[in-house]
Amino acid sequence: MTEIKEAQASVDRWIARFEEGYWPPLVNLARLTEEVGELAREMNHRFGAKKKRDDEPQGDLALELGDVLFVLIAIANEQGIDLDDALTKVLGKYEARDSDRWRAAESGPAAQPGSTRDGDTN
Amino acid sequence: MTEIKEAQASVDRWIARFEEGYWPPLVNLARLTEEVGELAREMNHRFGAKKKRDDEPQGDLALELGDVLFVLIAIANEQGIDLDDALTKVLGKYEARDSDRWRAAESGPAAQPGSTRDGDTN
Amino acid sequence: MTEIKEAQASVDRWIARFEEGYWPPLVNLARLTEEVGELAREMNHRFGAKKKRDDEPQGDLALELGDVLFVLIAIANEQGIDLDDALTKVLGKYEARDSDRWRAAESGPAAQPGSTRDGDTN
Amino acid sequence: MTEIKEAQASVDRWIARFEEGYWPPLVNLARLTEEVGELAREMNHRFGAKKKRDDEPQGDLALELGDVLFVLIAIANEQGIDLDDALTKVLGKYEARDSDRWRAAESGPAAQPGSTRDGDTN
Repeated sequence: MTEIKEAQASVDRWIARFEEGYWPPLVNLARLTEEVGELAREMNHRFGAKKKRDDEPQGDLALELGDVLFVLIAIANEQGIDLDDALTKVLGKYEARDSDRWRAAESGPAAQPGSTRDGDTN
Repeated sequence: MTEIKEAQASVDRWIARFEEGYWPPLVNLARLTEEVGELAREMNHRFGAKKKRDDEPQGDLALELGDVLFVLIAIANEQGIDLDDALTKVLGKYEARDSDRWRAAESGPAAQPGSTRDGDTN
Repeated sequence: MTEIKEAQASVDRWIARFEEGYWPPLVNLARLTEEVGELAREMNHRFGAKKKRDDEPQGDLALELGDVLFVLIAIANEQGIDLDDALTKVLGKYEARDSDRWRAAESGPAAQPGSTRDGDTN
Repeated sequence: MTEIKEAQASVDRWIARFEEGYWPPLVNLARLTEEVGELAREMNHRFGAKKKRDDEPQGDLALELGDVLFVLIAIANEQGIDLDDALTKVLGKYEARDSDRWRAAESGPAAQPGSTRDGDTN
C-alpha cells in the first residue's frame, strides 16, 4: 500500500546510495525511451504479430511497466516534481477537455482496477 | 497522499465513465509513445538545443510527466497489473543486478526527493 | 529519384546554413523521440481507437514519416554514418537471423512497394 | 548508391518472401518504438551516463540506425507512401517554417555528410 510520495522517496533512497546520483535530464529521457522500447517489444510479442525467437524468454509485462515507472519517477525526482500532484492535475485537465469526446457509459458502475471493458481486438 | 493503488482506481473510475472503456493494448502503447514524445519535446526545450518557436507556450513539465503516468496506469489497469507490486519487484531486481555497477556514495545521507546530486551538464 | 547518399547531403546542406550546426547526440535522440511520438499520434488517429478532437487537423502521415526520416538522417550525419551501407548490413543481418522465423510465401512474386499483403486487422 | 525508392523496393522484396507480409500499422509502430529504444540504449551507452554491464557487447550504432530505417520503410511501404517525396516535402516545410528560427551561418561552405559542426558536450 505504497503512496506515490513514498515510491518517489524509495527511488531517491536507491539512487542516493551511488556517487553518480541522478543522471542529467536528457540521459534520463534516453533511458525512458529505452525502457518504453522494451515495453513495446513485450507488448508486441503478446498482442502484435511479431514472432518470438526461441532464445527470447517470455518476459514479464509487469516488470517492463515497473521499469518505465522507475525512470519516470527518477525524472520527476531529479526535477523536484510531485507525481501525485501532477496526476491530480492531469485528471482535472482531462475532465475539462475530454468530457465531451467520449460517449458516456449508460450504466457505469465503478469498475475495478484491471478490469477490461472492451473487446480487445488487437 | 495518494496510494499507487488509489491512483490506479482513480484512472479506472475516469475510464469507467465512458462506453469505450480501455483501449486495446497496442492502442494504449501508441498513446504512450505519443505522450513520451511530448515529454521529450518539453525536456528538449528546457535542457536541449532546440529553440522554441514564439507560438509555442512554455508548457508544463509536470503535466507531461502526469500524462505519461496516466497512460502507464491505463496500460497496467487494462492488463490487471498492480503497479505498486511491479515497482517493488523492479527495485528488488535492480538491487540484485546493479549493486556492483555503481560506486557507492561514501557518505550517503538519504537525499530528499527532487534533489539533484550530480552536476547536470546537459 | 534521390539516392540515400544524396538525401544525407541535402540534410547536411540544410543544417550547414545555420551557425548551430548539428545538435549533440542526446538532443537529436530526444527530437527523434518527439517525432516518433507525433507519428504515433497520427497513426493512432487513423488506425487506433483514439478520437480526434474537432480542432485537430487530419494531418499527413507522409509528412510525419518524413520528419522521422529527417532526424534519423541528422543523427547519422552527425555520427558520420552511411545509412545506405547500414541498411544493406541490416538486410544481411535479417537474412541470416530471421530466415527461419517466418513461413516462406508459397508463390512469392516480387510485390510492389506500398502493397499490403496482409489483412490489416488493426 | 541506392536510391530511396530502391531501398523501399528491397524491403518490399524481403517481406514478400514471407506469408505474413506486412504487419498491421500499430504492430509496425510498436516495432518502431522498440527499435528506437534500442538506438536510445546504444546512444546512451556512448554519449550518456549509463554504464555498460560487462556482458553487454559494444553494439553498433550504424546497425541500430539501420534497424530504425528498416521499420520506417516498412511502415511507408505498408501505407503506400513514397519516402523520397515525403523527405522533399519535409525539407520544403522546414524551409518555410524554420528559416528564421536559427541564426544563419556567417560563412557556410556546404559541409560534408557526417561532419559535426558543434562541440558535442553531451
